[in-house]
Amino acid sequence: MALVTLSDIRAAADLIAPAAVRTPLLRFDDRLSLKPESLQPVGAFKIRGAYHALVRLSPEQRARGVVAYSSGNHAQAVAYAARLLDVPAVIVVPDDAPEVKVAATRRWGAEVELVPMARRESRAHELVAELGATLIPPFDHPDVIAGQGTVGLEVVEDLPDVAVVLVPISGGGLASGVGAAVKALRPGARVVGVEPELAADTAASLRAGELVRWPAAERARTGADGLRAEPSELTFAHLRAHVDDVLTVSEAEIGDAVRRLAREARLVVEPSGAVAVAAYLGRTDWPDRVVAVVSGGNVDPEAFKALL
Amino acid sequence: MALVTLSDIRAAADLIAPAAVRTPLLRFDDRLSLKPESLQPVGAFKIRGAYHALVRLSPEQRARGVVAYSSGNHAQAVAYAARLLDVPAVIVVPDDAPEVKVAATRRWGAEVELVPMARRESRAHELVAELGATLIPPFDHPDVIAGQGTVGLEVVEDLPDVAVVLVPISGGGLASGVGAAVKALRPGARVVGVEPELAADTAASLRAGELVRWPAAERARTGADGLRAEPSELTFAHLRAHVDDVLTVSEAEIGDAVRRLAREARLVVEPSGAVAVAAYLGRTDWPDRVVAVVSGGNVDPEAFKALL
Repeated sequence: MALVTLSDIRAAADLIAPAAVRTPLLRFDDRLSLKPESLQPVGAFKIRGAYHALVRLSPEQRARGVVAYSSGNHAQAVAYAARLLDVPAVIVVPDDAPEVKVAATRRWGAEVELVPMARRESRAHELVAELGATLIPPFDHPDVIAGQGTVGLEVVEDLPDVAVVLVPISGGGLASGVGAAVKALRPGARVVGVEPELAADTAASLRAGELVRWPAAERARTGADGLRAEPSELTFAHLRAHVDDVLTVSEAEIGDAVRRLAREARLVVEPSGAVAVAAYLGRTDWPDRVVAVVSGGNVDPEAFKALL
Repeated sequence: MALVTLSDIRAAADLIAPAAVRTPLLRFDDRLSLKPESLQPVGAFKIRGAYHALVRLSPEQRARGVVAYSSGNHAQAVAYAARLLDVPAVIVVPDDAPEVKVAATRRWGAEVELVPMARRESRAHELVAELGATLIPPFDHPDVIAGQGTVGLEVVEDLPDVAVVLVPISGGGLASGVGAAVKALRPGARVVGVEPELAADTAASLRAGELVRWPAAERARTGADGLRAEPSELTFAHLRAHVDDVLTVSEAEIGDAVRRLAREARLVVEPSGAVAVAAYLGRTDWPDRVVAVVSGGNVDPEAFKALL
């Protein structure tokens, strides 16, 4: 299986420059720096992969539009990128999704189609067939992985002798891209994935050397709602090649990291976005020059208040 | 009176690069971008001016150390800069200052001397005389103003056709530096200061064409505790030269801006840091390409929770 390369990621960096923020590294303590992707438009790294996938479409493909199914950060990222590029977008959302997320997606001008949860994926494929539109998957696509990989490129640009990069894993698009960039530029650096204990299927898969599937209901136990997906064959191949280890964190550790990021780094971070910092805080044997990717900040205000 | 020049500010930018974060502009809506200085080490733009003042000291001056009197962001900035440069620092703090602020200053290794509020300034001058140390004022110094001016330099670098820069005014160091940089690089841009209605002495002074003093007790009414200082002759000369207008905002508008910055920009901002955004939100007749300087994020967690 062909993996995304450093040159794919470098090309992506040029293409996404008009849409994504060049986030700085923020010093958290003597060893840890944060890569605050919560500061991106739509509040998550997802804009990098979504915009890259859209900007690479041909004029004909753009005219026929794009489709995504998601109720989370990916939906908003596709909607936002589609607006920037003037591409029609339909986002298929489960009809039990919170109104606030639906409104956030509509805000960018995308058409939102509400369907029963079980019909979400099939309806998206119907739309692709009906409209001749292009499906933009949240992680299972080389252009999406290359876009997310620009996070790793920037980390090494800003901290060339980085020793460890901690990165959340769900579907694995972010860790795949970051791993590809970091390992190409600095092979001696360790790329460490982080998962909630309650959705640690990738840790199990990497130990087993093959994809181990956890039932969706089990993965749904974590409050880190952005980390309930599972890798595809494509992302798992990247993770096997580039990820040195996967650490897991408890729900309490995630909440503690959200609180400390608000108090000490002045960042509003969602639980999924805080797991890499939670992993850092859970151990003391770190070398100097650790970077934690803070992947997103779309937290419900009441839930956030309760964690502060 | 000699004003700080663009070349002073450019020189400062080079000197402070190792200590200050190159903050990005963050898009807030179709017209407004944020300059999030809340992401600096110590949580405020103050690190720029403090580090610049310290790094410009001679080896002899550094060896004799520095003194500052403040219980706020300037104290922490001087302590942090002194630690980076290995300069002994004594911070004179009123003995009724919140323990959390004292601890934050001690955290960086500075010696904290607690004195009665009325003795604060005189004790600092005694220390200067006793130790041969250098006093680092919070705004009344060209090196401090030039350091803060790097905020303006970066704004124009990132948004060369900026139309309006909104900047909080207290002692006026930030607005002086930002005004000097922006007006030199883009004379057509408007530099607009923002004050709380309850501490609007600079608005009154600029209208009067001379420094109008408000009693400290009056300025202390605002909850924006970083905006209770008043300009010096030096900063007022800069403000007269470079600031086109001063807008004032109510306490309710400030609280609303703090809440919206947390929810929509995912930033933890203190009331003083939110006034420029409050001024933007209070009017609708803005042109495109407005930048609001979000000056700091050191908010008491309980107060922040109450505003969310």
